[in-house]
Amino acid sequence: MSLAGIPTSDTSVPLLEAELLRWVGSGDSTLELACLDALFPPGKLLRPVLCMESAKAVGGTADQVLAFAAGIECLHVASLVHDDIIDQDPVRRGRASTAEQYGLAEALIAGDGLSMAGIAALLSGGPAERVLHAARVIIEALGHMCQGLMRETEIRGDLTCGVPTVLGILQAKTAALTGAACQAGAILTGATPQQHQALRRYGEQLGMAFQIRDDLLPYTAEEQVTGKTATSDVANLQPTLPVLLAYEAADEADRDRLTTVFRGTTDPVTAHREVLAVLTRTGALTKAARMASSCAEQAHAELTGLPDSRQLAELATSAADRQH
Amino acid sequence: MSLAGIPTSDTSVPLLEAELLRWVGSGDSTLELACLDALFPPGKLLRPVLCMESAKAVGGTADQVLAFAAGIECLHVASLVHDDIIDQDPVRRGRASTAEQYGLAEALIAGDGLSMAGIAALLSGGPAERVLHAARVIIEALGHMCQGLMRETEIRGDLTCGVPTVLGILQAKTAALTGAACQAGAILTGATPQQHQALRRYGEQLGMAFQIRDDLLPYTAEEQVTGKTATSDVANLQPTLPVLLAYEAADEADRDRLTTVFRGTTDPVTAHREVLAVLTRTGALTKAARMASSCAEQAHAELTGLPDSRQLAELATSAADRQH
Repeated sequence: MSLAGIPTSDTSVPLLEAELLRWVGSGDSTLELACLDALFPPGKLLRPVLCMESAKAVGGTADQVLAFAAGIECLHVASLVHDDIIDQDPVRRGRASTAEQYGLAEALIAGDGLSMAGIAALLSGGPAERVLHAARVIIEALGHMCQGLMRETEIRGDLTCGVPTVLGILQAKTAALTGAACQAGAILTGATPQQHQALRRYGEQLGMAFQIRDDLLPYTAEEQVTGKTATSDVANLQPTLPVLLAYEAADEADRDRLTTVFRGTTDPVTAHREVLAVLTRTGALTKAARMASSCAEQAHAELTGLPDSRQLAELATSAADRQH
Repeated sequence: MSLAGIPTSDTSVPLLEAELLRWVGSGDSTLELACLDALFPPGKLLRPVLCMESAKAVGGTADQVLAFAAGIECLHVASLVHDDIIDQDPVRRGRASTAEQYGLAEALIAGDGLSMAGIAALLSGGPAERVLHAARVIIEALGHMCQGLMRETEIRGDLTCGVPTVLGILQAKTAALTGAACQAGAILTGATPQQHQALRRYGEQLGMAFQIRDDLLPYTAEEQVTGKTATSDVANLQPTLPVLLAYEAADEADRDRLTTVFRGTTDPVTAHREVLAVLTRTGALTKAARMASSCAEQAHAELTGLPDSRQLAELATSAADRQH
């Protein structure tokens, strides 16, 4: 079965959905309703799938990590709910974002509630030593995510912050958690340190590939396909990897065009069209796509020696090829 | 030593402060700076002190639960940072709130970052079985807190929601966490179920007393003393316990006065003065203060049979007597 381009085993998605419901409640309060609304219909379920497939790759079963994986998804979605407040994004997964639908205060609380439901799920299983180790790995990654988000607010409108800064943000915002999801799945099923560290690196590289592709989507895919507003990053003056690659490679005229757009006075639709033209002309789109492929290759390399990593290999390939 | 009216043992406060620093970092990023700014100078440290004193009350040491207690404080302060976004409160502890100082998006991220630092601290110690049990207790309480906050947004402007609704919100918003802080401290130091459940009930009753007093402060204390804006609740049309007690006891003329104020068209200063007059006339202030004392008495009763609960007894007394 394939969910939004992410290949998963046939049975894991319905199991995950049932598990998510179990942790968020039946919807008999506004908090639960808002959480359910943010969780369902689910997105790609990339992070919990990575957790479950990592468990399987080291000889465990998806079932052993099901609650933990659902917890990771709750925490990821909680971060999206807060993200949409920060970016003032009215649209998420093709529907009104939680903030748009319930209001800012309510979305803030819903994100916090979803986080707590997620952490409760992380901590629910056993054995205690493994659960604690795996939960620490996830919480550390979520700390990095906050660092990345804060850093992101600081570089708004700044085209000179440099490619390494943006790569650092992608690592903190996305790759840390995808890496932690893989490592945690392996820890929970008794992997050796060598195995769970390799899976962490695999997950980080896959996360980089995934996020680089994600930042390309506004320029390569239709809004209906992404379920997001294509103009959001530009409207928020957020310099993403393709934009910075373009800025580096651009001639003076194109740099001026980007600079003008990132002053924030251009209307979003024109701004988006202008940026797209520069990204195409400078070859930044191709270059970013190549970087995604290179990360996916490094992810593949980490799988050598694992008992059963076929599914993880497919996931890495699809992360770098995703069109939505 | 007494910190803002909360009696604590001489050594616990500096130890806690050092531990908080350890979990939040040295301030070399905006995220860390915003977190440090929200944490320091510290408030009453009621929840971590309850955790440490509960550990001592069952024969443990404060040192055994120091990191866990610091984690609880981080989580509490994280909720305050988000609260001030929800209530649009520019002032906290006599200074600009995080949202006011850093901006809404930044405060949202800082709250999330502080939560993650807090959870990392909760999960840092051992033995694993006890840590996991204690952490589950705290996370469950934080889930209740989110339920309470959401419910609070729903009763804005509604003077007819009833005293039991508001008591339920106080329980969820405040008492759940103070109870959990006590229970967790006891669990971590090997208390019997009977002991840690009694301490949970103690902490819940103390939390109720504390919060009932807190809602009275705008009408009984000077702003400089509370460090909060006295008019905040009224400006947010938040019907607190004293207001609902007054509404229940008021004659028609006073009900009309409250109804007019809670329509939200009166300016905050006049609104506050009007409400204060009705609260005084109806005896609601006295009644609420009596309810706080009654909760404190119930808290005291739960301490019977604990090895060393002198400090906890003092804390319960001061929670119901606090003037700031």
